[in-house]
Amino acid sequence: MKTCINPTPQQWAALCQRPQIAAENLEELTRQVFTEIQRNGDVAVAKYTGIFDGIVPNSLALTAAEIAAGAQRTPAELQAAIQLAKANIEKFHTAQIEQKQIIETTPGVACWRESRGIERVGIYIPGGSAPLFSTVLMLAIPAQIAGCKEIILCTPPDKQGNINPAILYAAQLTGITAVYRVGGIQAIGALAIGTQSIPKVDKIFGPGNQYVTAAKQTALNYGVAIDLPAGPSELLVIADDTANPEYVAADLLSQAEHGPDSQVILLSNSEVIVANTLKAIDKQVKALPRKEIALKALQNSKAIVLGTLAECLDFSNAYAPEHLILNCRDAEKYGDKITNAGSVFLGNYSCESAGDYASGTNHTLPTNGYARSYSGVSVDSFIKKITFQKISKEGLQAIGPAIEAMAAAEQLQAHKNAVSIRLKDLKNV
Amino acid sequence: MKTCINPTPQQWAALCQRPQIAAENLEELTRQVFTEIQRNGDVAVAKYTGIFDGIVPNSLALTAAEIAAGAQRTPAELQAAIQLAKANIEKFHTAQIEQKQIIETTPGVACWRESRGIERVGIYIPGGSAPLFSTVLMLAIPAQIAGCKEIILCTPPDKQGNINPAILYAAQLTGITAVYRVGGIQAIGALAIGTQSIPKVDKIFGPGNQYVTAAKQTALNYGVAIDLPAGPSELLVIADDTANPEYVAADLLSQAEHGPDSQVILLSNSEVIVANTLKAIDKQVKALPRKEIALKALQNSKAIVLGTLAECLDFSNAYAPEHLILNCRDAEKYGDKITNAGSVFLGNYSCESAGDYASGTNHTLPTNGYARSYSGVSVDSFIKKITFQKISKEGLQAIGPAIEAMAAAEQLQAHKNAVSIRLKDLKNV
Repeated sequence: MKTCINPTPQQWAALCQRPQIAAENLEELTRQVFTEIQRNGDVAVAKYTGIFDGIVPNSLALTAAEIAAGAQRTPAELQAAIQLAKANIEKFHTAQIEQKQIIETTPGVACWRESRGIERVGIYIPGGSAPLFSTVLMLAIPAQIAGCKEIILCTPPDKQGNINPAILYAAQLTGITAVYRVGGIQAIGALAIGTQSIPKVDKIFGPGNQYVTAAKQTALNYGVAIDLPAGPSELLVIADDTANPEYVAADLLSQAEHGPDSQVILLSNSEVIVANTLKAIDKQVKALPRKEIALKALQNSKAIVLGTLAECLDFSNAYAPEHLILNCRDAEKYGDKITNAGSVFLGNYSCESAGDYASGTNHTLPTNGYARSYSGVSVDSFIKKITFQKISKEGLQAIGPAIEAMAAAEQLQAHKNAVSIRLKDLKNV
Repeated sequence: MKTCINPTPQQWAALCQRPQIAAENLEELTRQVFTEIQRNGDVAVAKYTGIFDGIVPNSLALTAAEIAAGAQRTPAELQAAIQLAKANIEKFHTAQIEQKQIIETTPGVACWRESRGIERVGIYIPGGSAPLFSTVLMLAIPAQIAGCKEIILCTPPDKQGNINPAILYAAQLTGITAVYRVGGIQAIGALAIGTQSIPKVDKIFGPGNQYVTAAKQTALNYGVAIDLPAGPSELLVIADDTANPEYVAADLLSQAEHGPDSQVILLSNSEVIVANTLKAIDKQVKALPRKEIALKALQNSKAIVLGTLAECLDFSNAYAPEHLILNCRDAEKYGDKITNAGSVFLGNYSCESAGDYASGTNHTLPTNGYARSYSGVSVDSFIKKITFQKISKEGLQAIGPAIEAMAAAEQLQAHKNAVSIRLKDLKNV
């Protein structure tokens, strides 16, 4: 972790840079897989599952019995933990439902919005070493609250064609309507296009490696929406002299272990806290099973000393972190100063892991500076808000002349006519 | 307008198709302009303004005096109309601000969301024959309500370098912070990259031709967000025997005059209404200044008779129209049945023009079937919702063990440690 003492404001832009990822150009590969899926459906999906995952499954869909049998193998203690997390996520996300509110903008002109769940959504859960069942909760729970009718899960099988029990348990608990043992580009392609077994969805959610990311970009060309632009995970901690360096170190490492391209930033107005945190990191990292990954991520990472907490907050807003921990005295009072961040954790006991799993907030968040313009996933991500209006005769008489004047000035005569023809009748009554 | 009586459900998918637009591949051109702007800034922007708009302006930015002088030339009657529209749009959109709501998901675990305006937004207003000042209102008013700090407007100049007075009047009225006489690809490129005069923005809004659409796609690669995927405008009307065919015809024509690639759909359970509406269209279209455009759009358009209103609603949901007029008896009672639409107009007096200009709802809406997964523009489009959490010692003791179990099962030991290190201290107290 590089340390940087009192950088000038001119140096901030460079310090806010994310590590450049030498992304392979995967456009051609994704286009090829998508084209084959368009032509051959399930056969193409099975073929690429053979190539990329080393197994050609007998069937892409899991039966209800397979899901139930798999889910049952989740240890009881983990089941209880998942249930606790579910209850909190559900409670927080349920409050996001917008109540219908009819606004009479002019007497006789009633306008309102109504929320509708996106009918079919696809959730992608990566395979690999760790089964990300927590992401099933973070995506399926808001989908269910939003009223999505079909919530379809795709995740790559292991070499025996099996899916991790905890993923199936989480799926069962959260109203997932179908599970497919399909991963990678072919999963995203199937969800974007539709095959004999896998229905075309309206929106695709979920994390993934560079193949999945490229495939989600390609899916946009097929009229399917996606959750968020992808990027490596990141954490920024602002710590003052009340912070416990061991806690700060543990938090930074919890982010660093995600991947070699993760980035963590420590900001402080205290050189002592920075020095002690770096010492604690050196000590703690040694005991981690994912030590090699964390060490690589720390190479991209920076500890920065600034004159005041106010400057730390300015820097953080310029960086726009996915996760921001304010580990300082009276952390709440700085909340208003935060303009760009995905999710904010206040105080010594609000560790990022809490939001990753069980406090109730969502862990699918904007990375790579996208917190400047995007929100994290919420119930909003699974709904459309449709505007409605009901205009009475009196209402149209009140606003009609303004519409006529504006339409005429925009040289849209037929727009004007639609009002004039009605106003004329009303005058004649 | 093609008429289709009682199509079978198998024919619906074809009837829901939008006209295919033979889009030029503009990727290379947009990439070239963006690259030059990156290299030469304002000089490149001025150069392309010369090439595409036939004028090299003395300065890209309008001064406050130029804006005020231009705005003043807006006729008084039009100023009053714009003010009425502004008041209604403001009233409707102000109600969209979400109140902060703290949810205690577990005792000691407080979670909430706070909205922040996206700091810098760019609004693009096309030039050409008609000055779309109404779109200034539809984008700048929610931006201002959202609390965006900089709201930047780009619009192409005429051959004398001037901007239409009504656009400047609307800009002045709605808190636009800067106006640039720049259009097309070079405007979007400047907003995405930033130049000496034009600041880089976080999100770009607004309609445009295929050049602007292609440039907005390219802007996504520069880390800038955009409002909505683009597509030609469209209207679907469901009319029963209580509808006035003259009104229905006027509404369909108001959409058809937008562009030759617009599409209008009439659905009815009454052959008589369809026949009378088609007659009224033939009569009304003759008097339109944009008759040629409307006639071309009508070639892409369909009048469809179905057995019942329920079937009409099913068809409409399958089509997912940008605008939907329910011109039928007790229109309100069908509102719940609508699952996919951008904006809905209920009854004989709720014409689409009302929503286009002055009722208060937004007119920037999802086209081309995107109403299945996207909402129209609202205050939501100009904000990010940041999640916050504050966890007490007791809170962490309550949810900590669940986090530890889940992190361990996902093989993320450092995530677990961040909790364990704190719980251990709390046990020792």
